[in-house]
Amino acid sequence: MDRVFVVGVGLTKIGRFYEKHAKDLFAEALWNAINDAGGVKPQGIVVGNMTSSVLMGQDSLGALLADHSGFRGVPAFKVEAACGSGGAALYAAYSLVKSGELDVVAAGGVEKLTEATTNTVTRALAQAADADYEVFYGATFTGLNAMIARLYMNLFGYSDEDLSYWPLKMHEYASYNPYAQLRGKVTLEQIVSSPLVADPIRLYHSAPIGDGAAVVLLVRGEERAREIAKNSGKEVLVELASVSLATDSVDLTSRNDLLTMDSTVKASREAIRKAGLEIKNIDYVELHDAFHITGYVSIEDLGFAPKGLAPKLYREGKFQKGDKPEINFSGGLKARGHPVGATGIYQAAEAVMQIRGDFPGYKASDPETALIHNIGGISTIAAVAVFKRVK
Amino acid sequence: MDRVFVVGVGLTKIGRFYEKHAKDLFAEALWNAINDAGGVKPQGIVVGNMTSSVLMGQDSLGALLADHSGFRGVPAFKVEAACGSGGAALYAAYSLVKSGELDVVAAGGVEKLTEATTNTVTRALAQAADADYEVFYGATFTGLNAMIARLYMNLFGYSDEDLSYWPLKMHEYASYNPYAQLRGKVTLEQIVSSPLVADPIRLYHSAPIGDGAAVVLLVRGEERAREIAKNSGKEVLVELASVSLATDSVDLTSRNDLLTMDSTVKASREAIRKAGLEIKNIDYVELHDAFHITGYVSIEDLGFAPKGLAPKLYREGKFQKGDKPEINFSGGLKARGHPVGATGIYQAAEAVMQIRGDFPGYKASDPETALIHNIGGISTIAAVAVFKRVK
Repeated sequence: MDRVFVVGVGLTKIGRFYEKHAKDLFAEALWNAINDAGGVKPQGIVVGNMTSSVLMGQDSLGALLADHSGFRGVPAFKVEAACGSGGAALYAAYSLVKSGELDVVAAGGVEKLTEATTNTVTRALAQAADADYEVFYGATFTGLNAMIARLYMNLFGYSDEDLSYWPLKMHEYASYNPYAQLRGKVTLEQIVSSPLVADPIRLYHSAPIGDGAAVVLLVRGEERAREIAKNSGKEVLVELASVSLATDSVDLTSRNDLLTMDSTVKASREAIRKAGLEIKNIDYVELHDAFHITGYVSIEDLGFAPKGLAPKLYREGKFQKGDKPEINFSGGLKARGHPVGATGIYQAAEAVMQIRGDFPGYKASDPETALIHNIGGISTIAAVAVFKRVK
Repeated sequence: MDRVFVVGVGLTKIGRFYEKHAKDLFAEALWNAINDAGGVKPQGIVVGNMTSSVLMGQDSLGALLADHSGFRGVPAFKVEAACGSGGAALYAAYSLVKSGELDVVAAGGVEKLTEATTNTVTRALAQAADADYEVFYGATFTGLNAMIARLYMNLFGYSDEDLSYWPLKMHEYASYNPYAQLRGKVTLEQIVSSPLVADPIRLYHSAPIGDGAAVVLLVRGEERAREIAKNSGKEVLVELASVSLATDSVDLTSRNDLLTMDSTVKASREAIRKAGLEIKNIDYVELHDAFHITGYVSIEDLGFAPKGLAPKLYREGKFQKGDKPEINFSGGLKARGHPVGATGIYQAAEAVMQIRGDFPGYKASDPETALIHNIGGISTIAAVAVFKRVK
């Protein structure tokens, strides 16, 4: 099978864009990616999105975005896997390219959340949980994560402050990232005194609500990719070496262990293996930290720390500049932002730019490999992709 | 590239199933397909669905269905392309198998419409139209199709009765189909005197609202497919020779021609070419007749009749038993039913069964090739697939 390469990336800043429709955001990201690739245009578009049906009253999103972006006619469809929609779209786009069906595919994501009331958005995001077994009984998505955070803190003996070092660093990293939603640094004191959303999760422990769109352009075949890289002034070629998807139950009650995200374990091991690597070979990681607790549990389930130790290790300086792997220099969902269905594609674009050395924010230490981890619900779906620098 | 084969098909009857959740319907269809394939199980699931986010308040649908069907853990995601969601899911599943990522994939579709009020369902289905340019101004999906029907009737000089021969035949065909929603035969008199929904479209010109689920199991490689066919007692091997997707604008005002569905033209020509065939080689067709007018325009845009002539030819007996191609012996969306996101997969299963010779309804004349045509909106997205008997 031919290999798949990322030849262009495009992002919008994440924020509140009352003046922009989701299709405007998507077109901006897509054309940024096309320009980044020296003008190479997609033959197909796969878009990750969670809430367009509920918040925009709009289906056929793929066609709408293709048309508005200037690509009326091309194959285009939406992939929905809650907050993991972007990662799942990357998976679908990757297989379209790898299969030989299309030579150049835009794997994108877009989400427009800020035109609805907080109550409406909270309800829309709760659809990542089980409608019948959880949401019906009043659970919100933050509430479910709060129960996991409480269990984790009780079991491993962590305080509110102990867990707050993650958001502290994320806000610092995001202050360097021009695409990030929350660019202001915060103090530990501000974090631990921020309002409780769902005890023990505080406002500053949580990813913000924001609009954004991201696109990566995938191309089949090394020769073609090298030519595009050359034409677009890139010195480094980045291969999308693997994408893996795994699922779990939607409702938490039927999980084996509330503190282990089985699908994250499964998808990450498989993606790393398919890329011909081992865990120790991963230089850089963008992982899914919708809440502080999600960041820590993800570090553990991806195999970078033993269960229960991630907060301790993180506070001691692990996973930061100069370590291996370096994690979430974008600022993560926590501070870069979390435009739900676009998040996995933001991560992909960030991984590619870190490998190329042209990420315009906090720079990783010249990574040769990068892994991204994007989940829907509490890892009801996990999408993991591995990127490699090609000599 | 390895070729892709359909080794199992599974359907539920279409109807109103108050006692069944969408996940129950899907599990039933999936296990029917597994049993049809002699026990071969999917390594991944792609599900077409339009309304789960709005009507069920449930995202992460892929994972939910995988878990409930007994396949917790496998890659699974939802594809949304309005009424073309099933066809788009088939496209995504086909590329997953063809790419070598997975060996056996369930391409499925499910829709659960009957637990909501008619008003709510009508609004949910209108999301196939443009939210800002059409629905905001009060357009319903039936209303938009009614304008096209009126234009067609005026331009080509057809009466209400002229167009009613399509539903007449569809109801007759469906009376033989055990999976069909509307199995009662109707008379021309009943059709032309049925209530107007949106002038000139009458109740009996329209597809019904129903619940249903369908699955086809795709396998890569002829050798593996032959082995499965043998083990499951099938005498005929069916290849999924091609799937093509094309898009158009969502809003009708920016179309080139209201009476030509450009994406249907594009996708069908491409699918037929990729399958190594010409239009004249197609023996059997299942096409997307959400309304009588959609059936006629589809016949024309697929290349089986000149523009404006489909109703005349159909009334004269063309496209019926013994002709080439034979069309919609399932009863079509009109009478088999239209469980939106599952419809494209029903068509795929019907095409496969007609080629195998084991369709339990009105039988085609031993077709060697079959084409299915599934659209979202008014061909905002068109998915066309071609199936072939392999000697």
